[in-house]
Amino acid sequence: MKIFKRTFDSTALTLLWILFGNFTITNAQKDTKDKPNFIIIFADDLGYGDLSSYGHPTIHTPNLDRMAFEGQKWTNFYVGASVCTPSRAALLTGRLPVRSGMASNKHRVLFPDSKNGLPSSEITIAEQLKKAGYNTACIGKWHLGHKEQYLPTNNGFDYYFGIPYSNDMDYVGKDIPGYKKLVQQNPENLKTENYNVPLLRNLEIVERPANQNTITKRYAEETISFIKQNKNQPFFVYMAHSLPHIPLFASKEFMGKSERGLYGDVVEEIDHGVGKILKALEDEELAENTIVMFTSDNGPWLPFETHGGSAGLLRAGKGTTWEGGMREPAIFWGPGLVKPGLITDLGSTMDLFATFSSMAGIQVPKDRIMDSFDLSETLRGHNPSPRKSILYYRGTELYAARLGDYKAHFITEGAYGQFGERTEHQTPLLFNLNHDASEQYNIAGDNEEIIRKIREMVQNHQSKLVRGKDQLAERE
Amino acid sequence: MKIFKRTFDSTALTLLWILFGNFTITNAQKDTKDKPNFIIIFADDLGYGDLSSYGHPTIHTPNLDRMAFEGQKWTNFYVGASVCTPSRAALLTGRLPVRSGMASNKHRVLFPDSKNGLPSSEITIAEQLKKAGYNTACIGKWHLGHKEQYLPTNNGFDYYFGIPYSNDMDYVGKDIPGYKKLVQQNPENLKTENYNVPLLRNLEIVERPANQNTITKRYAEETISFIKQNKNQPFFVYMAHSLPHIPLFASKEFMGKSERGLYGDVVEEIDHGVGKILKALEDEELAENTIVMFTSDNGPWLPFETHGGSAGLLRAGKGTTWEGGMREPAIFWGPGLVKPGLITDLGSTMDLFATFSSMAGIQVPKDRIMDSFDLSETLRGHNPSPRKSILYYRGTELYAARLGDYKAHFITEGAYGQFGERTEHQTPLLFNLNHDASEQYNIAGDNEEIIRKIREMVQNHQSKLVRGKDQLAERE
Repeated sequence: MKIFKRTFDSTALTLLWILFGNFTITNAQKDTKDKPNFIIIFADDLGYGDLSSYGHPTIHTPNLDRMAFEGQKWTNFYVGASVCTPSRAALLTGRLPVRSGMASNKHRVLFPDSKNGLPSSEITIAEQLKKAGYNTACIGKWHLGHKEQYLPTNNGFDYYFGIPYSNDMDYVGKDIPGYKKLVQQNPENLKTENYNVPLLRNLEIVERPANQNTITKRYAEETISFIKQNKNQPFFVYMAHSLPHIPLFASKEFMGKSERGLYGDVVEEIDHGVGKILKALEDEELAENTIVMFTSDNGPWLPFETHGGSAGLLRAGKGTTWEGGMREPAIFWGPGLVKPGLITDLGSTMDLFATFSSMAGIQVPKDRIMDSFDLSETLRGHNPSPRKSILYYRGTELYAARLGDYKAHFITEGAYGQFGERTEHQTPLLFNLNHDASEQYNIAGDNEEIIRKIREMVQNHQSKLVRGKDQLAERE
Repeated sequence: MKIFKRTFDSTALTLLWILFGNFTITNAQKDTKDKPNFIIIFADDLGYGDLSSYGHPTIHTPNLDRMAFEGQKWTNFYVGASVCTPSRAALLTGRLPVRSGMASNKHRVLFPDSKNGLPSSEITIAEQLKKAGYNTACIGKWHLGHKEQYLPTNNGFDYYFGIPYSNDMDYVGKDIPGYKKLVQQNPENLKTENYNVPLLRNLEIVERPANQNTITKRYAEETISFIKQNKNQPFFVYMAHSLPHIPLFASKEFMGKSERGLYGDVVEEIDHGVGKILKALEDEELAENTIVMFTSDNGPWLPFETHGGSAGLLRAGKGTTWEGGMREPAIFWGPGLVKPGLITDLGSTMDLFATFSSMAGIQVPKDRIMDSFDLSETLRGHNPSPRKSILYYRGTELYAARLGDYKAHFITEGAYGQFGERTEHQTPLLFNLNHDASEQYNIAGDNEEIIRKIREMVQNHQSKLVRGKDQLAERE
């Protein structure tokens, strides 16, 4: 009767993976398609604690949990910034936003009246994979410049369907002073028409305001349709959900479904789309040669209370350089390509650039400093992650740095009116993040040598840093 | 190649479980043994967030995660009190400790000089299962009275191996003023000899001080040996680990192994023992007819910093009536008996009494008020949990009550010098725990009707409450 039950034996799985996993890769690579497909599913403002498999009690995410179980569940995986625009720039370029100019102290993200966007001198992961013959699509939120030259199809993507900036912009509601008050006064007033956000296909506006109730579902459908159209050649999809960033919207099918309320409805609809994408890959017999990677752009937007997510055990959220702002759930799924396991090594969204380049058989650019480590041998289960450090920037300022288990905060500051004022620390706060993920117990007093090493690493980084011109400052 | 990978399809699993799961039960019950075996594995001071499957980033618990994946992972499961003695009394009697007298405002737990213990008028789950012909063992920490008449073998257990009270009692260290300072000054001073705790086999002291470095391993060995000796008749094991309660100890094999430090070493050794127990059940062909249940007695003891655990996203910890004090990881594993799934329904350690009684085919006592709901049909996947409410007592006072999704705090108070002074709330604080598990957003203002219903439930409970004589107050 064993076959009818949900069972696993990790020792046997590991052994069988060693025996057959690599063989599968080799075989697949000698197939008609010798390069794996890549799909990045990027949530917006989803916290470390918002999936069942990362500890949420009432958000049901069976498809993402399936990915975590069948693939690798990373628990020390970071984004390049704690807010939207720079975080996306980091992922797409494999570089710290301070290098590309996509970080600013004046305006932290791009707005509908921003003048600029991602500089054309930057190489996106899509431009990079096109060198290896990939067909590329960006489905979802862009937020790296809404003018024509900055849009996805002018930055390495063959196809684009989505909104150019955040879903809370272009607010046109009349009687309502703001989202928070709106929701508290009457949740039913939460109307997609209040946000005059355009929906684009390639360079054309096809809907305005975008119907945000159906947008999550449509992103999944567009992704599946791109997969089916491109099944005979290597492809890359960057699927960047515009939710669960506020304002929260779900389709009729999901509205009121989650025990977690509207925020849960949204996350469960995203999860449902993940399930449909996995099924499409299996139906098209692409699952064995595709890596699906899931993460989020930054931590939960906590001031929005139950309309914001949860960082789980991590401290603070979006906008801060505490762990809750920059550590995210991160799942790599790829039967035959990714060895299942719980990975506590360090990783970053910036590493996707070098990792996918390596798996596609192309070199990373040599003409610039990259912040991207090749994780492919960790995904295959052969080596620990080559990444040993994390730099926590807020705008263009380095607030904190992690080296191995230890994180030093040189500056701490809350965000959006929570978690306290800016404080510069003569002696940095020091935490052992593997022992104390919640950053509660400062151990700076006993660890001068560790602080010295972190300072040395930071100085080394800063001595070579060439800061890009601030692209977020200018408004029209 | 599918068979070589870690994959699952929950829809297919559910369908197959419906088709064959019940059939398996029926078949097993017609077997030589018609009653399932029960094993409760009870950790001490382990928090909601301390397992990988409940979101911990660096504690590796593959065996408990396996149980959660193959069985039911409950996320709204409670203990009967937020400290040791009353929580254990609640589990063993299926009754609120305030009824049995195992709750007190003067002394919150029993001590080596306490005069009393669990009253003989109480019926333990072991006494209950003996009525159905079970062989019973208590392996581990007791803490319900250390005098002969109170020990396990005089309370329904055929066999006992363990320590009679907490592992931090009988302190005989000389130069060291206290555990916390000790650990901060020199972790290597953490010696098992400093705690003159006796180790008993049945009624005899077989070792004093108990060697706590090897105790976790020995509990697993004793459990396995009891399983093997009793494989031809129904058995019940209450395995109550004395760790990760401070002082923390691990065997040589586990010391220094965990990325989470010593606390992680201890939890990973407990998890390792779980794996050995599951293997023994499989080796003896008992897995199909045994339920293994894992939980902990109360939340993490947070003042001990990294020597205490994590409540994950839940507020506060041990000693409080916030969720972090009383909500615990809870996993039911039983291939063929338990339908796999994530269960967000309410449950309590007090429910194990009625649940196991029902599965063993015996009635719960009718001569007393029980606080125990039969969860067996929820375990089988047939019905939602019959439990709809939770009462949060601190000592003999009711501080809070949960009805459905909503929890009202009538009194809030921190513990062990953290989380604030005692405060009585004229209008209770009200939280929707499914939307707001972290108890951050008081919604009392908008929900008078919900508060009225909770008050009504509490009044109904209190009108029938007969308080047992305080068994913890008297010292010698």
